[in-house]
Amino acid sequence: MAHLLGPALTVSSPVDLSAYDSRATTGFDGKKADAKAQLFAMGEELSTLQEMLFAGGRSETTATRVLVVLQGMDTSGKGGIIRHVAGLVDPQGLSITSFKKPTPEELEHDFLWRVESRLPEPGMIGVFDRSHYEDVLIGRVRQLAPAEEIERRYAAINDFERSFTESGGVLIKCFLHITADDQEERLLARLDDPTKHWKYNPGDLDERMLWDDYQRAYALVLDRCSTEHAPWHLVPSGRKWYRNWAVAALLLEQLRALELEWPPADFDADTEKARLAGM
Amino acid sequence: MAHLLGPALTVSSPVDLSAYDSRATTGFDGKKADAKAQLFAMGEELSTLQEMLFAGGRSETTATRVLVVLQGMDTSGKGGIIRHVAGLVDPQGLSITSFKKPTPEELEHDFLWRVESRLPEPGMIGVFDRSHYEDVLIGRVRQLAPAEEIERRYAAINDFERSFTESGGVLIKCFLHITADDQEERLLARLDDPTKHWKYNPGDLDERMLWDDYQRAYALVLDRCSTEHAPWHLVPSGRKWYRNWAVAALLLEQLRALELEWPPADFDADTEKARLAGM
Repeated sequence: MAHLLGPALTVSSPVDLSAYDSRATTGFDGKKADAKAQLFAMGEELSTLQEMLFAGGRSETTATRVLVVLQGMDTSGKGGIIRHVAGLVDPQGLSITSFKKPTPEELEHDFLWRVESRLPEPGMIGVFDRSHYEDVLIGRVRQLAPAEEIERRYAAINDFERSFTESGGVLIKCFLHITADDQEERLLARLDDPTKHWKYNPGDLDERMLWDDYQRAYALVLDRCSTEHAPWHLVPSGRKWYRNWAVAALLLEQLRALELEWPPADFDADTEKARLAGM
Repeated sequence: MAHLLGPALTVSSPVDLSAYDSRATTGFDGKKADAKAQLFAMGEELSTLQEMLFAGGRSETTATRVLVVLQGMDTSGKGGIIRHVAGLVDPQGLSITSFKKPTPEELEHDFLWRVESRLPEPGMIGVFDRSHYEDVLIGRVRQLAPAEEIERRYAAINDFERSFTESGGVLIKCFLHITADDQEERLLARLDDPTKHWKYNPGDLDERMLWDDYQRAYALVLDRCSTEHAPWHLVPSGRKWYRNWAVAALLLEQLRALELEWPPADFDADTEKARLAGM
């Protein structure tokens, strides 16, 4: 991590996803076993920085909060990142939301309504397993809203994210890039393993039939919603160990850049020690 | 863990907390380093069992959910258990609630209202950092409600917990037992370490002045609310490594007793493989 990984994983417009190798290991120098060792080592620093962030939230001395947005096709590894990367820090400081099909109540509101209510509080690291981007992904592919409404949403998302970052939010948006072949291999592995059947849904194949449409929808998202304050990162996710390493590295870079400090005491330590001793 | 730890940590009425050694290592045979190694090993099994539980929830084949209730005086280690024990499993399957001073809205409702809304969903492991018991602890010590109301709450809690366990809930209630000397040592450590100042609040000493009242209130809780379906465990917490080991062991025992299985497929794997191959 001598060089920053973030800039190396940003995409340039116009985006053509077929040009990106899902098995690339951008920015990583070593083998699979090295990545696991590095991930473990990053875990120590992540854990300390997360505690500093959390301390700031608890003591109400910061508005800073971090939000990791995970998007990608089925089997791209959103759940794996939560387990292996988010799992490196104190769960007390995590706020994880898995967005499903919107409820009738959610559908009565603007598409950003349910997302706003799940933004992390100051001091917290939020993780979105799927997000407001579904409304321009499955929303677009399945035509779940009129075309004009879908078009309106890209700018609405950019405004929403700018407002989040201007109020102390840090966004880390990760598109977990896999190929149709990667997905086939992983779906087969799920079908072959009874301990993984619960992760499989026949509907997954209906979405897979629309692979190209989804790739185009993702390319549009990366084109239109990669902004200076909230860039998208294309994380090659054909190798699980690289994917985990890369997302941990992106999170660590962002936490380091915050230059966090332990919150100052709002009491006099010597006075308190004297009180305690006098009890 | 040849013998079950749970029964060894239950208390008998009438409870006299001064009779319990906070530095006991009940049920543990070994040294500090062994406890850490065992905790790590238990983490592997906990992680698998938690995933099975979670799988049941996701596939809507179970109503089972687990709730760990953590109570104890300041510095007894509620946060430490979340970090070191809950942190052993996939954070996606955790639902952690830290109960603070009730909000005006919460105060308008029955004391159990805010707790009900935070019960874990099927498949989840919930952790309560403080809980409905605060309403018969600080509630009693600080006389935050009329005496009759406080008295009413013990039976209300038992009814509430019975209803939770009858609908698939498993309760693991842990009282983290420390002495006033243990607390003094830990508060001093916090005051001596600027990276821990954020955990300290001068109000902590005001509560400490009422130590004996709190001990009596805890003894009442253990006497009146330790039921067959939801027993209290007194976890000696003078040694942090034992405390973490013991709570992990209690959780593991309960998860094992559930005899969890991977949810069965609601599809035919061969049919799905043929569909996938035909794409």
